[in-house]
Amino acid sequence: MNGLEIKEPFHVRRPVSPASLLVQNILARVGNPPVRVILWDGTVIAPPGGPPELSIRFRKKSALFHLFLDPEAYFGEGYASGLIEIEGDLVRFLETIYLSLSGIKISPIWSLFPKRARNNQSRSLQNIHSHYDIGNAFYRLWLDPEMLYTCAYFPRPDMSLEAAQTAKMDYVCHKLQLRAGEEVVEAGCGWGALALYMAKYYGVRVKAYNISREQVSRARKRAAEEGLSGRVEFIEEDYRKIRGQFDAFVSVGMLEHVGPENYQALGGVIHGCLKERGRGLIHTIGRNSPATLSEWVEQKIFPGAYPPTLKEMMAVFEPCSFSICDIENLRLHYWKTLEHWLFRFDAAEETINRMFDPAFTRAWRLYLAGSLVAFKTGTLQLFQVVFTRDRNNEIPWSRDYIYGKV
Amino acid sequence: MNGLEIKEPFHVRRPVSPASLLVQNILARVGNPPVRVILWDGTVIAPPGGPPELSIRFRKKSALFHLFLDPEAYFGEGYASGLIEIEGDLVRFLETIYLSLSGIKISPIWSLFPKRARNNQSRSLQNIHSHYDIGNAFYRLWLDPEMLYTCAYFPRPDMSLEAAQTAKMDYVCHKLQLRAGEEVVEAGCGWGALALYMAKYYGVRVKAYNISREQVSRARKRAAEEGLSGRVEFIEEDYRKIRGQFDAFVSVGMLEHVGPENYQALGGVIHGCLKERGRGLIHTIGRNSPATLSEWVEQKIFPGAYPPTLKEMMAVFEPCSFSICDIENLRLHYWKTLEHWLFRFDAAEETINRMFDPAFTRAWRLYLAGSLVAFKTGTLQLFQVVFTRDRNNEIPWSRDYIYGKV
Repeated sequence: MNGLEIKEPFHVRRPVSPASLLVQNILARVGNPPVRVILWDGTVIAPPGGPPELSIRFRKKSALFHLFLDPEAYFGEGYASGLIEIEGDLVRFLETIYLSLSGIKISPIWSLFPKRARNNQSRSLQNIHSHYDIGNAFYRLWLDPEMLYTCAYFPRPDMSLEAAQTAKMDYVCHKLQLRAGEEVVEAGCGWGALALYMAKYYGVRVKAYNISREQVSRARKRAAEEGLSGRVEFIEEDYRKIRGQFDAFVSVGMLEHVGPENYQALGGVIHGCLKERGRGLIHTIGRNSPATLSEWVEQKIFPGAYPPTLKEMMAVFEPCSFSICDIENLRLHYWKTLEHWLFRFDAAEETINRMFDPAFTRAWRLYLAGSLVAFKTGTLQLFQVVFTRDRNNEIPWSRDYIYGKV
Repeated sequence: MNGLEIKEPFHVRRPVSPASLLVQNILARVGNPPVRVILWDGTVIAPPGGPPELSIRFRKKSALFHLFLDPEAYFGEGYASGLIEIEGDLVRFLETIYLSLSGIKISPIWSLFPKRARNNQSRSLQNIHSHYDIGNAFYRLWLDPEMLYTCAYFPRPDMSLEAAQTAKMDYVCHKLQLRAGEEVVEAGCGWGALALYMAKYYGVRVKAYNISREQVSRARKRAAEEGLSGRVEFIEEDYRKIRGQFDAFVSVGMLEHVGPENYQALGGVIHGCLKERGRGLIHTIGRNSPATLSEWVEQKIFPGAYPPTLKEMMAVFEPCSFSICDIENLRLHYWKTLEHWLFRFDAAEETINRMFDPAFTRAWRLYLAGSLVAFKTGTLQLFQVVFTRDRNNEIPWSRDYIYGKV
């Protein structure tokens, strides 16, 4: 390690220790990011020129050893347990690591281990249950009141999260060209906000599918409260069970959970349910080039999740010859959305600690901060894909239908 | 063939002849389109309910026999030679055939034969020479005065071709976010209109590559005439020879000629020449699902050409981890563009007959009409893809940068 200095609080130089060799090895494997390392005994290992305000502190020897063995899988666990602490701003620390990793095919939060299991219907149920059914009360603490757990759309970066989530729903409706009286199917409807919005403001009838029991239960309650039960039907069922004929197909934030092995089947479902002049929109987290999520995120946070590249996504569309009309990348909007969520999450820290425990809180903070940084650094993308049937000529002449110059 | 009637001019029924069996076989293979067939001896074979105004006439037995052997390869040849004639509107006739072919994996103009040769630099030169160097005077007869031989952009469908080609250039400049003083490289610059437009109206410096000698020669002449030679350099060279560092990469209507085997190399060229904050735009004919051009188009009109699907196109972008910002499908605009070209082409028929010969005129009319119908029926697409480097965060917040609400 050229230039690495090993310091004690009083900057007394000491001979190189076994621990400092492990630290040097780990730092080298992630591209030598400019961060300070503080060991359990107070030893400071600092690269010259690194910002003194960003440090990673190991509370025990075992944490350093585990990180050495498998940086990617252990960082999240060590951080959640408190054996690894970040001093200074967590987001800035993670960003430093991500940028240092540029071009290196390993990443502490999102990475390459190809350990995904295939998502059949029973595994999908299990996966979705473990993430979405941990309690509506928890999500209510840091999502907007409509409880949209997907990227918002900020026509102006300074608008509120609430306004941006409404703008997102409206943007999706515009892109789908919804007309009053039409039939819409939604695959993966979360807590039902978009389905209710489409029915209320665009006068359509909606069948909305979701396999998360807690989400469907709350969505039905809202539909009843708002007098929309007759026009919005929430169905606790897998997307593979969609039946009927619809003018529009919409799916916001579900494809991440579908798994590439099921894309062609999803395309078949859409092919089977879309009318001749039907339009579709899929909104999903994606990537520039293929990679799986990190083991830690995949095991602890989002089992079965996989953000596809556009090339991989085309397996949904090409076999049935769907025509892609419009693709937009909104990754900066997810960065902004996650800033809002993380801010609210941190403000609710005490409540979340009481609701679960500090290790849960720390794991989720790391997941939110890591996601924020992934979108900020271009490690993750957010694609909105609008499509229609190949023979449909009733497609808009230009994008004026979205941007209101008609 | 249930319901096919064989008629003479005076509707006298006759026993089924060998010729009528060939006709029935050919019609069945292309999905039984509702068109009348007229044989060399005046026999009329008409499906019930078919529009009497659309007929295909065989001048000789040999033409019917050749079409029977290889409908896809021979139709163009037979039509060009005059042995096959279409009575009624050619575009309507071809549209009837395309729609009848829906779902059938053969098409008379664009189809499935995988006979493309790989496009190395010398073959590229040969291919481009055979299409683009047949004389600027010929193209001047039916293109707009700027000589843009790619899809125009019609913000209003009723605008003139001239206005729509200017709108297209402006649209491309907006999507590229060109700023005065920037350096732009154009791969495949045609007769130079876009390069000159960017320099003149956006104040950028352009290096424009093209391997068509006739096009480069005219482009240089125009640059000199307009006093832009100092700011626009036309280089008679293959895109693989691009050197330098640029703020923007643009390619309008070249990818069709590149060939999928070279997409990754093209991506490498872009990766090598795009600055850290650089943007790129590729405008290309494409498809919903993979297929090659018909043998006839590939051999007689556009050697080496291949319109890719989005999935195939991603081979340009994914290996270097480019970030796709925006994809728009403008196929209706190419339909409209081709209507203008075909109208002007037909108006110039006599001149073109004198310049070449009637067989050439007929072949090109079929190519233009067939292309028009391919875009109209959704057999071909037109993709504009905007991209940037993966780490570039100086990307627009929303599409206001294109649609002028900033």
